[in-house]
Amino acid sequence: MPASLNPRARPIVVAAAQMGPIALSETRADCVARLLEMMREAASRGAKLVVFPELALTTFFPRWWFEADQEVDVFFEREMPGPETRILFETAAELGIGFYLGYAELAHTDAGLKRFNTAVLVNDKGAIVGKYRKVHLPGHADHRPERAFQHLEKRYFQPGDLGFPVWETMGGNFGMCICNDRRWPETYRVMALRSVEMVLLGYNTPNDHTGHPEIDGLSNFHNQLAMQAGAYQNATWVVGTAKCGIEEGSPMIGQSMIVAPSGEVVAMASTLGDEVVVARCDLDLCRIYRETFFNFAVHREPAHYGPITAQKGPVPPTNG
Amino acid sequence: MPASLNPRARPIVVAAAQMGPIALSETRADCVARLLEMMREAASRGAKLVVFPELALTTFFPRWWFEADQEVDVFFEREMPGPETRILFETAAELGIGFYLGYAELAHTDAGLKRFNTAVLVNDKGAIVGKYRKVHLPGHADHRPERAFQHLEKRYFQPGDLGFPVWETMGGNFGMCICNDRRWPETYRVMALRSVEMVLLGYNTPNDHTGHPEIDGLSNFHNQLAMQAGAYQNATWVVGTAKCGIEEGSPMIGQSMIVAPSGEVVAMASTLGDEVVVARCDLDLCRIYRETFFNFAVHREPAHYGPITAQKGPVPPTNG
Repeated sequence: MPASLNPRARPIVVAAAQMGPIALSETRADCVARLLEMMREAASRGAKLVVFPELALTTFFPRWWFEADQEVDVFFEREMPGPETRILFETAAELGIGFYLGYAELAHTDAGLKRFNTAVLVNDKGAIVGKYRKVHLPGHADHRPERAFQHLEKRYFQPGDLGFPVWETMGGNFGMCICNDRRWPETYRVMALRSVEMVLLGYNTPNDHTGHPEIDGLSNFHNQLAMQAGAYQNATWVVGTAKCGIEEGSPMIGQSMIVAPSGEVVAMASTLGDEVVVARCDLDLCRIYRETFFNFAVHREPAHYGPITAQKGPVPPTNG
Repeated sequence: MPASLNPRARPIVVAAAQMGPIALSETRADCVARLLEMMREAASRGAKLVVFPELALTTFFPRWWFEADQEVDVFFEREMPGPETRILFETAAELGIGFYLGYAELAHTDAGLKRFNTAVLVNDKGAIVGKYRKVHLPGHADHRPERAFQHLEKRYFQPGDLGFPVWETMGGNFGMCICNDRRWPETYRVMALRSVEMVLLGYNTPNDHTGHPEIDGLSNFHNQLAMQAGAYQNATWVVGTAKCGIEEGSPMIGQSMIVAPSGEVVAMASTLGDEVVVARCDLDLCRIYRETFFNFAVHREPAHYGPITAQKGPVPPTNG
């Protein structure tokens, strides 16, 4: 790796491993084989960390209404790693590469069975370092027959109950979020307040589902804008990885990308299929923004942020 | 005005009235004459609201170190309107146009004299509707002789003490902020939680002052990114107006712009001088985003946002 002009540079080569569509008929083994092939490619190109999409082991099933729990549960993992996914962990350890993997989690809790839209961060020894459960669930819980496709995340998942942790591992501070989380500035901000240096996120984003063509037509722009702003305003790297293409008739955006703390896109996928993009990311770049514009300890004014935590929805104008 | 496809459209024509440099030698009367000319142009082009820059009545004096209060106080207004600015209010009433004006405010408070970086919102009858005092003061309070120009906002101003109010006036819900405020997602979010439909903001942004050429070189990009993200993520219009060009040797960015709730830039200045840009803004566009992606009452999860108000600076990674 060439020398950096920055004597404090902490470079890590990272990959976003985008997936094209997963058919309803594809098995876990089929999906894992695709992930393994991309993990090997990422490692061969120098990557020490590879980010896979949200719900990377199945088709995006919230597009369909299922009446019975049993019909839905086939899309969920009961353990991680499990029999079909263990090979990912073993290969990661062999190759010395960490990974982020999104999947549907059926969790046995004290309060009974719960379903989450989950991601794990696995280190370069093949060990799970952290788990994240999607906080911002989009869509609806009711059946809407007028829609070409449902968006039933609010039916099939419960909101994440783990908050937005940040883990120190593999030479940096890493956080996770999933899909719709990336549109909410609170997501990145909470992690930045915990010293995150790289936010890992996977997504499945249909671009025909708001009912407003003028919104849907901007799906790619909004995807990029949200991640660029999250990176810049929080002085953090962001690695966003799509599952994309036309999946079971539903079109989803691609644009998997790696964004620098400057807000600049340093790598982006150019297809709607399985594709690995790689960038060398200096984690120390976060610091120069955090020592200037975004020196939180000097410049933030939380006394005036009260409504952000005190309110969920909006109130009328205060008129002074 | 042509009919809209949106039967609930609430259009308002708005202007951003950018100023080129103000020399140290220019008087209040000189500045007011420039503002009046642009107010008349804005009105003649159909605008019902015109946004002037931050500190629109003087040069950007925080670039210099002044030892004595009396030296600084010449840049401050003791009343608004005052003898030199009253004509702006009278002309606005004649023309039926509202305005936003930034200025340095010397306030007599119960706690004694205080200095703020302030903006007022004046309605189309020439009456002050609201006042905002800049919350996020950038720069430093100490003298830094190694800098070509100081950035002494933290010396000459106190942080705003009025929060981020939103006013219902002139057919919409309006909020204000100033310059550096626009880089902080909390600014827009607090106003969005108070149903803002249009955020008005003026700025003076030197592009040679962070000590990092790789940051300074992105000044225009960061200006645009922050306002586009603020608009999109909060489903609000944003009108940003620069004082720009090379002022007393200090280069400042232009790019005054009007941004739609989609995040799209619908008008932008193309000079670094006095220039009026105008756009027809349908305030109802906010609604379609607030009923879908950004339906706060349905989708926000404040239980997980605690650190945003509980912390000022960052803490180490939580590791789960």
